[in-house]
Amino acid sequence: MSGTTVGLAARAFDSGRVRSAVDERLAAFLDVKARLAVAQGFPTEVTDVLRDLVLGGGKRIRPVLCVAGWCAAGRDGDADAVLQVAASLEMFHAFALVHDDVMDRSATRRGRPSAHEAIAARHAGRPGAARLGVDAAVLLGDLALAWSDELLHTAGLGGERFAAAAGVLDGMRTELMYGQYLDLLATGRPSADLEAALRIARFKSAKYTVERPLQLGAVLAGADGGVWAALSAFGLPLGEAFQLRDDLLGAFGDSPETGKPEAEDLREGKHTALLALALRRATGADRDLLTGLWQEMPLGPGQVARIRAVLDGTGARSGVEELIEERRCQALQALEDPGLPPAAGAVLRSVVSSLIGPAR
Amino acid sequence: MSGTTVGLAARAFDSGRVRSAVDERLAAFLDVKARLAVAQGFPTEVTDVLRDLVLGGGKRIRPVLCVAGWCAAGRDGDADAVLQVAASLEMFHAFALVHDDVMDRSATRRGRPSAHEAIAARHAGRPGAARLGVDAAVLLGDLALAWSDELLHTAGLGGERFAAAAGVLDGMRTELMYGQYLDLLATGRPSADLEAALRIARFKSAKYTVERPLQLGAVLAGADGGVWAALSAFGLPLGEAFQLRDDLLGAFGDSPETGKPEAEDLREGKHTALLALALRRATGADRDLLTGLWQEMPLGPGQVARIRAVLDGTGARSGVEELIEERRCQALQALEDPGLPPAAGAVLRSVVSSLIGPAR
Repeated sequence: MSGTTVGLAARAFDSGRVRSAVDERLAAFLDVKARLAVAQGFPTEVTDVLRDLVLGGGKRIRPVLCVAGWCAAGRDGDADAVLQVAASLEMFHAFALVHDDVMDRSATRRGRPSAHEAIAARHAGRPGAARLGVDAAVLLGDLALAWSDELLHTAGLGGERFAAAAGVLDGMRTELMYGQYLDLLATGRPSADLEAALRIARFKSAKYTVERPLQLGAVLAGADGGVWAALSAFGLPLGEAFQLRDDLLGAFGDSPETGKPEAEDLREGKHTALLALALRRATGADRDLLTGLWQEMPLGPGQVARIRAVLDGTGARSGVEELIEERRCQALQALEDPGLPPAAGAVLRSVVSSLIGPAR
Repeated sequence: MSGTTVGLAARAFDSGRVRSAVDERLAAFLDVKARLAVAQGFPTEVTDVLRDLVLGGGKRIRPVLCVAGWCAAGRDGDADAVLQVAASLEMFHAFALVHDDVMDRSATRRGRPSAHEAIAARHAGRPGAARLGVDAAVLLGDLALAWSDELLHTAGLGGERFAAAAGVLDGMRTELMYGQYLDLLATGRPSADLEAALRIARFKSAKYTVERPLQLGAVLAGADGGVWAALSAFGLPLGEAFQLRDDLLGAFGDSPETGKPEAEDLREGKHTALLALALRRATGADRDLLTGLWQEMPLGPGQVARIRAVLDGTGARSGVEELIEERRCQALQALEDPGLPPAAGAVLRSVVSSLIGPAR
């Protein structure tokens, strides 16, 4: 593990190396927790299910961006501690996914049964197994959140860097949870309000997935306010573009690609920018289709195909592609900021297409 | 606020002063969060509901014990920081209550609608309001947990004391969540296994409510291993007695006393020591009543009265009273430990009867 770390501090930014170093840490942490559970007589399904979720997939976007922010800001400080904070971000993300799937009653995640489904399956045959799965998954998520803290607290950060990192993380958590809350309130009642949809995207995704991980890495390198602001100018539009791309995947992607049930956003009536644009432009029967559908959930496959045709036909799909490209340009332009260290541009440019695909 | 703090450091331990100082901090923290929510356009129902829960009741047991542990261990260090950590414990407890009520689908808490009910009521008339209340309460709990961290991170603890405190808290959280998990798995299938019931009580309550808060306060005073062990020898039996007393209240208490729906433990089929003792001793029709009841939830008032009669008639109720007294004696005996500072005995003796009532 120390080989990876030394490599990280010395070499060019390499997202693949970050992923393996973070995975090593997560696996080792969960191994210890599993052994402790056995020793204390706790049910091992907790660590089993969490391990399947955490190590069974995922792109490690937030850890990679955290380390990218650290590299962009000059790599000052202990690389080992940075990797552990990055692992803590991924454990936090596991918490967010478990609770998100509970709230959406989503059946799959990363191509496997979601946590509440996995737990319910372990208790199949018991009366109330589905309800037990949901309740236990709330606890499992809580535990992942507590363990994300434990990874952070044991990263070996000094007092000042810890306080700066905790400030970013505390803010990030509050933003994410309010973003999710806005999302929850808007679900089942999509409207033509594009601004509202973009606002949800900003809090539940752009800040959480891109801006804050980059800034977290930067404060771990002792970055100043100029770097902080430049990373925001880069990260926010990139993060919005990431969520818009995700909205397109949520509507048009198939399960092998997304790891989620097909067209889940549509089935749930999520208020996305894609739907807001379609509702602005649709008329007649198309409009009735969109506004009437979430009264009669769940949707059948025929209805999903019809909605997809409307999203295409109204130009909403291509409109979202345009929003993505606008934001790509804004993000790339932010890299010209003279407040960023010289090496930052190359590091940050390298994450753009991995997050939102190549430019059209 | 600083007046309270100075008083705390100088005077004899006074649980009433701790309660008001902690309440002041919680109110001030939630005021700031409410103003930020308004400024950022977030729904204010989040802070409204949390404020009603946090400031609308509660005995502040864990904050009081944290400060008691700090006083017992010699009051070294910054009293202001200790009070903020104590407030962080209470915010953590708000998280635990919100998620606990979600898992139990419990309608009331502290004599008011529980968080999910309060949120659902704010959206009454909207389709799926009950489900929205539950999902939003999961998020509300998550936010309370994140804010508990924020209170901890901004308490102004130095690096070493912070690391020691975080170690206690991280362990406490894991224990509580496993305890809740054990409780969840055992709910609806109570058995004569007294040891299993006591084990659940130990993790979900004795450690979480008593042992760890005392030890947290002690490490904030820089206590050594001898004090740590003595507080465990005192806190664990006292905490078990506290949960056993709570089991009696859960079965025999009325709503004004508990702030919870009457006989909720019985209705849910919680695996408590009280029920384990009754199942050990009941025969014939009494036994059939106990083993058959949780197949046909919810219980009517007539059935609750019959179960209560069996709990009394089998001697299970008085058996639990005996278990409580045994543990009271163990806790008081632990105060003779020469590893404790001279002032500790008076402080710790004062919390015993407030937690488990006077000796019989």
